[in-house]
Amino acid sequence: MPAAVANTRITRVDAGASSTADDILVGEEPLEIRLGHGPLDAREEFRLSVTMRTPGSDEELALGFLFSEGIIASQAEVVRIVPCESVEQEERGNVVRAELDPSVVVDPQRWQRNFYATSSCGVCGKSSIEAVRVQCDRTLRPWGRVRPDAITALPDRMRAAQTVFKHTGGVHAAALFDRHGELLVLREDVGRHNAVDKVIGAALRAHLPLADCQLLVSGRAGFELVQKCVVAGIPLMAAVGAPSSLAVKLAQELGLTLIGFLRGTRFNIYAGSLGSHSP
Amino acid sequence: MPAAVANTRITRVDAGASSTADDILVGEEPLEIRLGHGPLDAREEFRLSVTMRTPGSDEELALGFLFSEGIIASQAEVVRIVPCESVEQEERGNVVRAELDPSVVVDPQRWQRNFYATSSCGVCGKSSIEAVRVQCDRTLRPWGRVRPDAITALPDRMRAAQTVFKHTGGVHAAALFDRHGELLVLREDVGRHNAVDKVIGAALRAHLPLADCQLLVSGRAGFELVQKCVVAGIPLMAAVGAPSSLAVKLAQELGLTLIGFLRGTRFNIYAGSLGSHSP
Repeated sequence: MPAAVANTRITRVDAGASSTADDILVGEEPLEIRLGHGPLDAREEFRLSVTMRTPGSDEELALGFLFSEGIIASQAEVVRIVPCESVEQEERGNVVRAELDPSVVVDPQRWQRNFYATSSCGVCGKSSIEAVRVQCDRTLRPWGRVRPDAITALPDRMRAAQTVFKHTGGVHAAALFDRHGELLVLREDVGRHNAVDKVIGAALRAHLPLADCQLLVSGRAGFELVQKCVVAGIPLMAAVGAPSSLAVKLAQELGLTLIGFLRGTRFNIYAGSLGSHSP
Repeated sequence: MPAAVANTRITRVDAGASSTADDILVGEEPLEIRLGHGPLDAREEFRLSVTMRTPGSDEELALGFLFSEGIIASQAEVVRIVPCESVEQEERGNVVRAELDPSVVVDPQRWQRNFYATSSCGVCGKSSIEAVRVQCDRTLRPWGRVRPDAITALPDRMRAAQTVFKHTGGVHAAALFDRHGELLVLREDVGRHNAVDKVIGAALRAHLPLADCQLLVSGRAGFELVQKCVVAGIPLMAAVGAPSSLAVKLAQELGLTLIGFLRGTRFNIYAGSLGSHSP
């Protein structure tokens, strides 16, 4: 079965001297997400996507992906998500199947397209933002007044809970906090988008009120991460790294409070405001 | 036209005090790559992919992507890559078209599939590696004996040349060096895979001997980056961050010398060896 970490033997080099050592790597394996109706109806089964991910929390990853990409509008559209048993031995643990509610139409053509740019909606920043607006039936409420130290306290809380990073030094994290800065969900993955999908999937399963939560990511805030946050209805996203131009535009247009370069006692607000700390 | 950087107005918060400031963001816009024969034959035109990228070096990005993903086997299969003029005004600069040599068959079915995992090859680490082996008709030669300080000198040379990072603090970089550590090509992008594709595309255009070059990336070394390096025939890849389990396996099986955590005077060798510094 695929694992979250793997052991390896390395050569360490330091100031010209080398030695061998045992090391721990972050696990990476492909995960295929399939969609269908009923537990065993392979006729209508559709292979939606393959992503390289760190094994673990795979059902949450699939659920979060389906929701944050606008393939399902609510958790109620999925009956259950289970590992596929009907695959080859070596694929075991790398294929999950989402059983859709009978009311959901299997529409490969709609699912197969790139969500942020199709022939019908054009290839430009404006149409990328419009595509997210279409997926997003909810309005984000402003986060409201908050003390800056409530924001600057978040990264340490995330890091303290990052077990895979402690061992490997090489993995992205995403963490969901409530309004008081209490950590609700943390997930780690080689893929930054997977870490966010796992968090969103775990939150859906636990019926957490996403509209009242804030999301912290360990890296940069690119368009696709901000898209996931907006579609999931989370009103505040903070990143340790920098946001991109299109991520900032998307946040501004759809009402997400976007924070970047959150380090030590400092951060930048790129969209929205934190009450009295707005421009 | 899309730009590599964009200006914005932000609120800076430091130890509870806030002020407004001008800031520079790294540009992010979608790029569509189309394939076809002849300059104006839209009949056979195929929309291969859309990627979120930092505008600039788009023809190099397309060429590098086609080569590193195994869609073309050599630069000779592409007559030229040009910006599409026949698109809507707002899409200008976000669509490029690769004119394929008449001998190359347009095969959407083969191109559309996920290269690292298809229904025919299975969804597991082993088959992911096999898929790269199939794409890869060249054997990587061992990098051979090299002094450690020749490796540890690379990151400073890359950073010194990173202009977008200097302004935005938020962009990935990839750099190609020759055997003596001389910087040949540097490219920056919001997407780490795009930075690598741009470097590979630029190297192909300049007819640089990839089999005699080393690649440095600013982030981690995941499977897909190592795959691009191997398929392009570059025998050594160094990363400032950590490699993943599958990236290390791929490097070991296909003969890539893989270095990670390259920082200061230190680095780890995960696959291959550097002459006398091997285990």
